[in-house]
Amino acid sequence: MTRGELPSITMPTRTKRNIAYDEEAEVWKYGDRERLREAGTEKSALHILKMAYVIWFLKHQITENRSSTLRELYYISEGWKRAKFAAQNDSNLLVEDLEILTDVQREHFHLRPEEDGASIFGPLRIREDTRRGTRELHCQDDIGESGYQIPTNVDSLEFVEHDAQMVIAIETGGMYARLIENGFDEKYQAILVHLKGQPARSTRRVLNRLASEFQLPVTVFTDGDPWSYRIFASVAYGAIKSAHISEILVTPSARFIGVQPSDIRDYDLPSDLLTEQDIAALKAELTDPRFAGDYWKEQINLQLALNLKSEQQAFAARGLDFVTDEYLPARLSDMGVLRK
Amino acid sequence: MTRGELPSITMPTRTKRNIAYDEEAEVWKYGDRERLREAGTEKSALHILKMAYVIWFLKHQITENRSSTLRELYYISEGWKRAKFAAQNDSNLLVEDLEILTDVQREHFHLRPEEDGASIFGPLRIREDTRRGTRELHCQDDIGESGYQIPTNVDSLEFVEHDAQMVIAIETGGMYARLIENGFDEKYQAILVHLKGQPARSTRRVLNRLASEFQLPVTVFTDGDPWSYRIFASVAYGAIKSAHISEILVTPSARFIGVQPSDIRDYDLPSDLLTEQDIAALKAELTDPRFAGDYWKEQINLQLALNLKSEQQAFAARGLDFVTDEYLPARLSDMGVLRK
Repeated sequence: MTRGELPSITMPTRTKRNIAYDEEAEVWKYGDRERLREAGTEKSALHILKMAYVIWFLKHQITENRSSTLRELYYISEGWKRAKFAAQNDSNLLVEDLEILTDVQREHFHLRPEEDGASIFGPLRIREDTRRGTRELHCQDDIGESGYQIPTNVDSLEFVEHDAQMVIAIETGGMYARLIENGFDEKYQAILVHLKGQPARSTRRVLNRLASEFQLPVTVFTDGDPWSYRIFASVAYGAIKSAHISEILVTPSARFIGVQPSDIRDYDLPSDLLTEQDIAALKAELTDPRFAGDYWKEQINLQLALNLKSEQQAFAARGLDFVTDEYLPARLSDMGVLRK
Repeated sequence: MTRGELPSITMPTRTKRNIAYDEEAEVWKYGDRERLREAGTEKSALHILKMAYVIWFLKHQITENRSSTLRELYYISEGWKRAKFAAQNDSNLLVEDLEILTDVQREHFHLRPEEDGASIFGPLRIREDTRRGTRELHCQDDIGESGYQIPTNVDSLEFVEHDAQMVIAIETGGMYARLIENGFDEKYQAILVHLKGQPARSTRRVLNRLASEFQLPVTVFTDGDPWSYRIFASVAYGAIKSAHISEILVTPSARFIGVQPSDIRDYDLPSDLLTEQDIAALKAELTDPRFAGDYWKEQINLQLALNLKSEQQAFAARGLDFVTDEYLPARLSDMGVLRK
């Protein structure tokens, strides 16, 4: 500005059209389209002013070893006069912009989401750096029956050692508790991770690290409906919102274990009719590059023909042990995760 | 039936009109209205048949020391032909009927909800009986930064000892993490309980037990809107759905700490306008016996006059330490929980 130049920022365009598959990293990332923001208009000038305020706040926060939630950051901007955010969505997006510009995750700015991390249960020893000192815990022996709760900053966690053959990520709490009760983690040396629906960043980071640090196979076990397939896709391919940090959040080796539409047919599972929204979502998935392979085409078309969806807990109709004694071992053998 | 008599069940009517305040126990309970269900109609006969099936299943489950989710129970009924439930709500209600008839909680039938229990952080040592043995944990020293996750069956938990002056139940994860980060639990010897919005049964049972076993004062810290006041009411007075087990779920001594409508005014908190739904809910609370006292009348009328609501994290507008250094100590002194 003192040189008489307009301050400006150049950023990748953050739209679906600017997402491309990175063959080498096996994840979806931003492409080459860029957007220049110059402080020549009031709108862009205010945007850059807000960014300067946020950077100032984050610098303070890091220096003082404090942290805050994304919601608190939004409220803190109340005191910034014209740099005040109108809605939390704006401050969240700005933080994502900063991640893209700096190539540093928001967790390292000491920003937390409201959302809860999920839980882990299985043959894994972790070490967590907390403000009250270091805690070393074994995720079967040193924790309660609900498992070890993943902290928001997974990088404060060290995976010390494990005795596992596989990782299973599970959508619902009911199924997660079922596998624990049935001792699936012990019998099959499985680390169980509860996704809690659409997984939080911290949960996806945990799966990424378990897969890459220990070279463990990761399978994803969800309900059998289009929304759950998206949960799988966000684990295995990532999401537009976080395409800039795909490499650390995504588990490209993750595979879908079920509920498959063919399971609904083969096991005659209790099911519900597809709604209009379900059908529209399935059709959208047929053109989504993340579901481009033959496997998904076949399954999704089968589901549209059946006009049915089932939940993972529907296996209970065949008895409480069916899922752990029959279904999962059969699928894991088919997928080559379990060797007979 | 062999005596030529129609099987029948008599149950309290489960409506708002049949809820009365029990002065002695200080909780809301079912009144004297009853309903007789006789197997003389097809509908009632099917109801009794379903009940017989559920009792048969639960008896098995308890004998074999198994457990299941309410969702699994619904799916298991798929195999019961005409006794099959049409929707999970029907099987849930039947389980509540069994609780009323037997005076035993569903947790003792080994039935779990899907919902997650919340977390605890503070100067408390617990002992949990798990299927893998007994675990003894201190809720500051032996757990990660997210706290100890409450299991669904709180009665498998023993509260061994504590070094606490109070319990604070907190609605949002952001504020719960704020109090932990700021060391509020250490400085004020507070057991922090994360409610996670409308609290699960297990969370309410924990608060009930902490209050009754240790005679600790319990305060409830929520957002400042009518939906959050209902969260407080469900902790302190109970809910219609669980009026039959109010005595073990409700904490009559629990008091509301904030956000109070008067705080929005006194601290000039960032706020939003009330919506039509908010206004309707506030007006409904003015006639709700649970909000009958002068305190609530005054606060709710003030809120309607201000036409504003605020979240607990709005305190961040005054700095990240304001809530722990100023607001809470001042309120706790006013309420007589903290003695100067």
